[in-house]
Amino acid sequence: MFTTTVTPRFGDIDALGHINNTVLPVWFELARNPFFRMFQPDLKIELKTWSLIMAHIDFDFLHELTIQYDVEIRSSVSRIGSKSFTLVHEAWQNGKLCSKGEAVLVHYDFNTKQTTLIPEHIKQQLAEHLVS
Amino acid sequence: MFTTTVTPRFGDIDALGHINNTVLPVWFELARNPFFRMFQPDLKIELKTWSLIMAHIDFDFLHELTIQYDVEIRSSVSRIGSKSFTLVHEAWQNGKLCSKGEAVLVHYDFNTKQTTLIPEHIKQQLAEHLVS
Amino acid sequence: MFTTTVTPRFGDIDALGHINNTVLPVWFELARNPFFRMFQPDLKIELKTWSLIMAHIDFDFLHELTIQYDVEIRSSVSRIGSKSFTLVHEAWQNGKLCSKGEAVLVHYDFNTKQTTLIPEHIKQQLAEHLVS
Amino acid sequence: MFTTTVTPRFGDIDALGHINNTVLPVWFELARNPFFRMFQPDLKIELKTWSLIMAHIDFDFLHELTIQYDVEIRSSVSRIGSKSFTLVHEAWQNGKLCSKGEAVLVHYDFNTKQTTLIPEHIKQQLAEHLVS
Repeated sequence: MFTTTVTPRFGDIDALGHINNTVLPVWFELARNPFFRMFQPDLKIELKTWSLIMAHIDFDFLHELTIQYDVEIRSSVSRIGSKSFTLVHEAWQNGKLCSKGEAVLVHYDFNTKQTTLIPEHIKQQLAEHLVS
Repeated sequence: MFTTTVTPRFGDIDALGHINNTVLPVWFELARNPFFRMFQPDLKIELKTWSLIMAHIDFDFLHELTIQYDVEIRSSVSRIGSKSFTLVHEAWQNGKLCSKGEAVLVHYDFNTKQTTLIPEHIKQQLAEHLVS
Repeated sequence: MFTTTVTPRFGDIDALGHINNTVLPVWFELARNPFFRMFQPDLKIELKTWSLIMAHIDFDFLHELTIQYDVEIRSSVSRIGSKSFTLVHEAWQNGKLCSKGEAVLVHYDFNTKQTTLIPEHIKQQLAEHLVS
Repeated sequence: MFTTTVTPRFGDIDALGHINNTVLPVWFELARNPFFRMFQPDLKIELKTWSLIMAHIDFDFLHELTIQYDVEIRSSVSRIGSKSFTLVHEAWQNGKLCSKGEAVLVHYDFNTKQTTLIPEHIKQQLAEHLVS
């Protein structure tokens, strides 16, 4: 599991006083940096070498998030396929699980526009963060 | 079905040349304005009177979206429950369905912090946009 | 002058009930598309061919913007230099000027990393939108 | 001076490979949290008690920011008036000043819709972060 801490900002709070639902996709994307680094250690994003494409994301909103406390994003792997894998993200604030969601990423060659096998050594890195 | 047209901007495009996945939640939220108006015709957002809370959103990414054409968001209703309903959003660009997703909204009283029944006259308005 | 109409969305509204200040940079960027097309008619953004870099942006907040009306962004040119130019953007809502700001863009070659002269035929296009 | 560290995310990077200009307003807003807490220690944002309104923000882009390193936002006070003050923000990455800008905030009563004097004890807190 990787942990990413984010601090809510004034504009993340909507007119009802809670973190707006469109903020979670941004936070969960930030929390994927350590997974991205498994595939591209220097995080350099170029069509020539980048090998991941997003297929699906989802979000459940369980409790309201506010501006008053930092939020801890806990990220794990829930599935490792031959050509894709699934991440699970949880947003915790003040001891409470407030939002959770998944992201399905596909291993992809942007030059040939085809899905490709995830290398074994990366599968092993992903497996270290696998939860059931 | 409601149709909302959005024009991609420079910063919506990520380093791979495509609309970033976190942009779709923003566009789909914008496309919910006509549904919000069924519950709050003047769109005034206040805890005293606002009656919707987001429970779930999801997004499938089918084809890459680029900056070069406007995007049409088509929004319908896929389910009308007693206390919640589900919207479906589709993002079309240049004749192609590029992304789709759902949003589950719950009818909610922010003062009593309880779910409440959707009034019949609003159910009828939602039903005009129901798809199977 | 170019005019771009934007519709505020739920999450653009902050906890005080107004459009958050970080939304204006996004709207004004969108309003630069027609100027970008003078330099790159197909809006294709690639280091090889893109020729503009942002040097400065500023924003004055004159009146609160709300979610209840569409916003008209009016964009003109206030200065045309040999290697840079300045745009002025205004956000109008319900007949009132609510925010205005400038953007300074520099003509730039990303390959040689040097500023370059704006071609005469583009200067003429910019001049059609010049205000004093 | 307050220091806020932000980690760039995938979608902050635009099609030219750099942090998009609209990201800086978001980061600088986040960096204002410690100043907001001088006026509202619990950061609770409500029209009844919140006392700051944004009058102006600006941004100079000096060097390109990338995704590869964390960014340090350094924030100070450059002016303390009777009813308003000015903050200066700098974005440093990998030892280089990449962007800087100012924000003018006005002390304001949202109930009477009038500017109000900044209390002396808050002026003293601001003065601890004053730079010339």
